[in-house]
Amino acid sequence: MRTQVAIVGSGPAGLLLGALLGKAGIDTVILERKSKDYVLSRIRAGVLEQGTVDMLAEVGVDARLHAEGLVHEGFAVGFANRRLRIDLKDLTGKAVTVYGQTEVTRDLMAAREAAGLTTVYEADHVALHGFDGASPRVTWTKDGRTHELACDFIAGCDGFHGVSRASVPVGKLRTFERVYPFGWLGILADVPPCSHELIYAGHDRGFALCSMRSKTRSRYYIQCGAEEDVAAWPDGRFWEELRARLDPEAASHVVTGPSIEKSIAPLRSFVAEPLRFGRLFLAGDAAHIVPPTGAKGLNLAASDVHYLAEAFREHYGAGSGDALDAYSARALARIWKAERFSWWMTSLLHRFSDQNTFDRRMQEAEFIYLEDSRAARTALAENYVGLPF
Amino acid sequence: MRTQVAIVGSGPAGLLLGALLGKAGIDTVILERKSKDYVLSRIRAGVLEQGTVDMLAEVGVDARLHAEGLVHEGFAVGFANRRLRIDLKDLTGKAVTVYGQTEVTRDLMAAREAAGLTTVYEADHVALHGFDGASPRVTWTKDGRTHELACDFIAGCDGFHGVSRASVPVGKLRTFERVYPFGWLGILADVPPCSHELIYAGHDRGFALCSMRSKTRSRYYIQCGAEEDVAAWPDGRFWEELRARLDPEAASHVVTGPSIEKSIAPLRSFVAEPLRFGRLFLAGDAAHIVPPTGAKGLNLAASDVHYLAEAFREHYGAGSGDALDAYSARALARIWKAERFSWWMTSLLHRFSDQNTFDRRMQEAEFIYLEDSRAARTALAENYVGLPF
Repeated sequence: MRTQVAIVGSGPAGLLLGALLGKAGIDTVILERKSKDYVLSRIRAGVLEQGTVDMLAEVGVDARLHAEGLVHEGFAVGFANRRLRIDLKDLTGKAVTVYGQTEVTRDLMAAREAAGLTTVYEADHVALHGFDGASPRVTWTKDGRTHELACDFIAGCDGFHGVSRASVPVGKLRTFERVYPFGWLGILADVPPCSHELIYAGHDRGFALCSMRSKTRSRYYIQCGAEEDVAAWPDGRFWEELRARLDPEAASHVVTGPSIEKSIAPLRSFVAEPLRFGRLFLAGDAAHIVPPTGAKGLNLAASDVHYLAEAFREHYGAGSGDALDAYSARALARIWKAERFSWWMTSLLHRFSDQNTFDRRMQEAEFIYLEDSRAARTALAENYVGLPF
Repeated sequence: MRTQVAIVGSGPAGLLLGALLGKAGIDTVILERKSKDYVLSRIRAGVLEQGTVDMLAEVGVDARLHAEGLVHEGFAVGFANRRLRIDLKDLTGKAVTVYGQTEVTRDLMAAREAAGLTTVYEADHVALHGFDGASPRVTWTKDGRTHELACDFIAGCDGFHGVSRASVPVGKLRTFERVYPFGWLGILADVPPCSHELIYAGHDRGFALCSMRSKTRSRYYIQCGAEEDVAAWPDGRFWEELRARLDPEAASHVVTGPSIEKSIAPLRSFVAEPLRFGRLFLAGDAAHIVPPTGAKGLNLAASDVHYLAEAFREHYGAGSGDALDAYSARALARIWKAERFSWWMTSLLHRFSDQNTFDRRMQEAEFIYLEDSRAARTALAENYVGLPF
């Protein structure tokens, strides 16, 4: 088998890259270690920047998003018993769209199938070869046989635990990391959200996030210990703890119900540099992780893909490798900004076990400064809606 | 002896309070543990917010300030080999004035003497009595005798190590503190400054600050170990290290010369709450310390005094105690904002021994974000010129 760009991973990064390249007449094959159903069972974030929405529109995969997505012109930051609305529209002229990452993935998969483009699911033992030379190849096993895909380039879109970054010789990779000493316990429940906009709440008991997938499906999170067992959190305990961390108004509007999903996720900041190794390019979680505070993960994958698709188009169209050469630096510039924002928002709103009373007051002072300063709110808002590509 | 307001400490906070109260016809006596010459030998910061300048103008102590002070419409933040100008005038419509705290103190002392108001220097063993009742008193010894001053109120303006805060029963005071694991090594030299505006420089080798007292007298600082000995820093070593931390342009303009003062100061964030204990009111460094990054110390003392003088005027004029009751909360609201800003600017620009490579990149990303975002620069600028009273 042969293709122009072999894409490893059929998450939103790989699928969006495939769609953009397909639109430009560039041939791709996507290799995915898991089954399609497994990929679609992963619950992920759900706040899309306008730039991400625009990219989905560019590839014609925005009909359901526009029909079902919720446009949010603001969100709230809570602190103890107070709540501050960040008016995105007023501060930046932009909004965000609430639409689950799983739905984005589903829509992109459907479009790819409709276009007759190849995705190989359940590809075991994917291995990347020869990307430091002129003729890279990807091999995998499926149905007991070994397969091989020759290609011009490999796009590693297979996430933090994927094979792509792991294939880079150790000495060629610089990594930067911060592991936060806590996790997020999240539940999904078919209850109306307590607020029509998201609430990111800092509290002495720990962080809480009120989010939603639709007007009838809520997604709530609370900060918990990194080592905690989800079994220690029956629904009743979760709801009680959530309410204790919200302002009274928000708490009074929490509608409880049985959880349909419940899990604990660790929080991590991570960046690998560079993003290019010969003919291998990393994009999305394969190269970087942000803590979920601020909802930058999916959007950052989309911006990587924006730069990478543009570079491939320039290579195949104009025959110039300049944009491919520039990809790593261009994408990383925006990645570090999103890393900074996600780290800042995480630092602002969580309890850290090594904080003293002065540190806690710094968090409170930052919240009060946001209340008082349009410049501070604008800085928060412009990051939240997404910095320009 | 009897007065209306006994002021402990003849630094800028006490002197400015005395001047404002004097102008309102309220009688004060200032008690100072040290000699006048000693007070005037202390080298301190030298960047005045417009609000501080306005207060000095209000008491008619601004002639020399306007003649000799340097109005700065901007300053620079450096990072590695780059420098970013923060255009205060453009971002906020305001400027700051470079004029040494020692000169402010000298001018206020001269005005107080000219007005015939009493300051007792070299007052030993100052002790505060009865401030939880209706008849507070201050006692001290001088020339072998014990003296007593009866008063309506006591204003504790005697700095971090003064007797005023120490006189408050421990259980009544909440304190918040952060001690930074480094100090600032500062020198004063009669050489022209390397730049006509201040440069706050972050660097892998540590922070550096290029400041000045006039067009022919420079004040430079470099971050050093908290336990270092100033004797280990002969002038030559200082100048070499300073240049190594600046961008090449700034470094090339450093003019060296013999230091006329050289010392190491620790960095600390500290707040005591509340600021009122019966008839004792704390103001300035007696109640709070900021690290010097951002030059908030003197300005914050001035804003405390602004609120406190207003409260005393209302008490003696309108006969209302409301403003005295509100003093602590009003002053603390602004104090915590300045604490946040000073902590943030310190955190942005210094090397911390426990930083990993990710943390360093967060500092760099913050600097790059400042370069890119007018909102971020505005937030920095509005704090630097001084938030509204």
